[in-house]
Amino acid sequence: MDFRPILYVIGILLLVLSLSLVMPMLADLYLGHQDWRVFFICIIITSFFGGSLLLSNSGHNFDINARQAFMLTFLSWIALATFGALPFKFSILDMSFTDAFFEAMSGVTTTGSTVITGLENAPPGILLWRAILQWLGGIGIIIMALSVLPFLQVGGMQIFRTELSENEKALPRTAQLASSIGTIYLGLTIFCIIMYMASGLRTFDAVAHALTTISTGGFSTYDASLAHFNKPSTEMVATFFMLLGGMPFVLYLKAIRGNIMPLLRDSQVHWFLSIVAISIIVTVSYLTLQQDLPFIESLRRASFNIISLITGTGYVNGDYGQWGGFVVSLFFFLMVVGGCAGSTSCGIKIFRFQVFYAIILLQIKRLIHPNAVFIAHYNGKAIPNDVPLSVMGFFFLYALCFALLSIALSYVGLDFLTAMSGAATAISNVGPGLGDIIGPSGTFKTLPDSAKWLLSLGMILGRLEIVTVLVLIHPNFWKR
Amino acid sequence: MDFRPILYVIGILLLVLSLSLVMPMLADLYLGHQDWRVFFICIIITSFFGGSLLLSNSGHNFDINARQAFMLTFLSWIALATFGALPFKFSILDMSFTDAFFEAMSGVTTTGSTVITGLENAPPGILLWRAILQWLGGIGIIIMALSVLPFLQVGGMQIFRTELSENEKALPRTAQLASSIGTIYLGLTIFCIIMYMASGLRTFDAVAHALTTISTGGFSTYDASLAHFNKPSTEMVATFFMLLGGMPFVLYLKAIRGNIMPLLRDSQVHWFLSIVAISIIVTVSYLTLQQDLPFIESLRRASFNIISLITGTGYVNGDYGQWGGFVVSLFFFLMVVGGCAGSTSCGIKIFRFQVFYAIILLQIKRLIHPNAVFIAHYNGKAIPNDVPLSVMGFFFLYALCFALLSIALSYVGLDFLTAMSGAATAISNVGPGLGDIIGPSGTFKTLPDSAKWLLSLGMILGRLEIVTVLVLIHPNFWKR
Repeated sequence: MDFRPILYVIGILLLVLSLSLVMPMLADLYLGHQDWRVFFICIIITSFFGGSLLLSNSGHNFDINARQAFMLTFLSWIALATFGALPFKFSILDMSFTDAFFEAMSGVTTTGSTVITGLENAPPGILLWRAILQWLGGIGIIIMALSVLPFLQVGGMQIFRTELSENEKALPRTAQLASSIGTIYLGLTIFCIIMYMASGLRTFDAVAHALTTISTGGFSTYDASLAHFNKPSTEMVATFFMLLGGMPFVLYLKAIRGNIMPLLRDSQVHWFLSIVAISIIVTVSYLTLQQDLPFIESLRRASFNIISLITGTGYVNGDYGQWGGFVVSLFFFLMVVGGCAGSTSCGIKIFRFQVFYAIILLQIKRLIHPNAVFIAHYNGKAIPNDVPLSVMGFFFLYALCFALLSIALSYVGLDFLTAMSGAATAISNVGPGLGDIIGPSGTFKTLPDSAKWLLSLGMILGRLEIVTVLVLIHPNFWKR
Repeated sequence: MDFRPILYVIGILLLVLSLSLVMPMLADLYLGHQDWRVFFICIIITSFFGGSLLLSNSGHNFDINARQAFMLTFLSWIALATFGALPFKFSILDMSFTDAFFEAMSGVTTTGSTVITGLENAPPGILLWRAILQWLGGIGIIIMALSVLPFLQVGGMQIFRTELSENEKALPRTAQLASSIGTIYLGLTIFCIIMYMASGLRTFDAVAHALTTISTGGFSTYDASLAHFNKPSTEMVATFFMLLGGMPFVLYLKAIRGNIMPLLRDSQVHWFLSIVAISIIVTVSYLTLQQDLPFIESLRRASFNIISLITGTGYVNGDYGQWGGFVVSLFFFLMVVGGCAGSTSCGIKIFRFQVFYAIILLQIKRLIHPNAVFIAHYNGKAIPNDVPLSVMGFFFLYALCFALLSIALSYVGLDFLTAMSGAATAISNVGPGLGDIIGPSGTFKTLPDSAKWLLSLGMILGRLEIVTVLVLIHPNFWKR
């Protein structure tokens, strides 16, 4: 395999990363924190590596084949997590490399699990850096879902192929599309900052939270997450933008260009909003009828947390582990459902459930009428032949990785609840788990190092749609 | 739909059931227990209903179509559970109808979850009746897997079609095959009784346990299950026959007829034994290294419980909930794996994992070499076109039913661990769950009635391979 085009692109990404390090450096300088030196050093290291890779591999053919694209996707995320970990490692927080890598991986995969306690006392540059990592991870995954994944036919993503990337040579069009969507992403972030400030947050908190809201990442600047503010208005802003972060950004682009119908008529959006609405209604009924909470309080808890978990954000406004068994069970399964494909959110994703539903309905019809001909549809179009198996294979791999990760986590010493919810929250890139240790009021800090590496593996598997990573370990991948 | 052939067959089944009631009546008479009268009344009721159905619907065409076959399968199990519940309802145990139905459904589906405490003091007839229900359920499911399921193409079972039922008209051949396999089933049961007696069990316990071992049912005559005897030799007998119960019976038939190669070369058997062996090795390593148990004790606990759970038997020789997080996690996932298709065991079943593996390997090869042609194989033969989607659809429905059942159970008041493990153990027809309430040292007695009905639904869904039941609620099923 020719690694040069791969290293070239990674060089560009590292240069982007080093540019992004300027913001936290300036924040530390402005707020008078000594850690600005850490960022300065990291900028030098990262830009040195990025520049070297760029220069030593430039001037080559930019056409990459499928195997190179898989390798590039995987190595990009590894490189971003590794270099993104440097500020954590060198900062006054004095983190081990394991902890620093875990935090950075949790950032770029928009997971939001943290190993830092006492965020209130952490350097502002570090807090901003965590948010920036998630923001970059968010736009990164949207662009990947637009360009690489449909072309690689990963997990049924080829269903979006006709819409987004007609053929492999559509790179210029993809680049243009990516920059348009990047603009929308930036615009929504700025809008979110303004709304957070209007709800009463100081500028720093508004910026840090806006970056992790629109990317459905979930890092906060406080240990208590949004419960720190305890403001319904702030939670409503978060809820609204998390919901936006969980829907396909390409539809926003069409809407802004004057064609709002695709957004209103998209069946994935309908399903997503319906699942959210039904979950909220049932949870409110449970909290009011069985837990005797007032209606308004139930609605606030249900809507905020359900949207936070299904989009994989992971903000919390209280310890939902204490709200009764039903909330725990429902929230556990909502974590893995995930948002829409083409958004910043994670998990199995809504379109796969739609494909499932269509296929299973078809199978049942065939069982009843063995001789009739039926066709499965997605969003009003016939589902291409290769999609159902890809989707179902993806689902199986998801379940298998979840099971193996849970078992491995419990082997290194985690209890059942921590292992199960840790595996689910990592593979679905949500953030908090269940139980006293990694639940909404805990952190991942006390876990053994082996568990942190396993969870980091889970995060990258989940974020890159599993198949993208598994392909790399197949012997055929390495054969000529 | 013409219900007459369906009611005719159910009539026969009820007559078989009423004949089976003679054994516990004789046991109670012989051991001098007053409850023999209960069985006498139940024989009259059941044979009256069975005879009426038989006589009023006889003389019709026996050719049934797919829709009738689905309806027959479902109604058979419901009828057996309903009439099987009568002795529980009328016995001196004074159970509610909910409890009686739950116990009977747990019996005929070979689940083994119980609502009876103080089994030591229960009438011997009742203990024998529980065992007989599981024994009948076990042979029932083998015959169904031979005849109805491949023909109905449920969940990829059509992969066994060529081997077992060439075409829809193969009824005489199927009947002959069923009676041969019934003989083997009976022979293994008698062999198992003798071995249990050799290990030191009294005749009654040996018979009751043999009936629930070979059927991988798991009802015991003691609250503590096999831990009551605390004998390695008894556990070894149980382990051996549970393992036999988890493998395809049709291969035993071939072996007895002189052709042992299909049994030795069957890839499903290889996978099954490999998964069991790997699980035992890893668990022994965990118990010896991390829980400081002696090697022999670790091996005893690991081999007995792993085989008990993967085959869906549900015997226990101790509270595995106390053996560390890894054991709990691994055992939880082993429950849903299940044994081989064509056996008495339950769960997703090994052949589906094989089909998955073949399909996913194929997909990964295709991703790497988009233009090459690959073919997926099962047991040395190409997998038919319609099997992969059936298998994957089944897997998805399994996961979906598990999730919805967990959520529903927690809505009616169960905690997270009880709801999750209760749903898994019901759908996989295992028996015990996890936690203090329904774990290996608990019972299902204290659960609310709503939970018992939900779990009964889970048991029949799991036992009838889900699709068989879901078909019935589709509107198309009822259209002309």
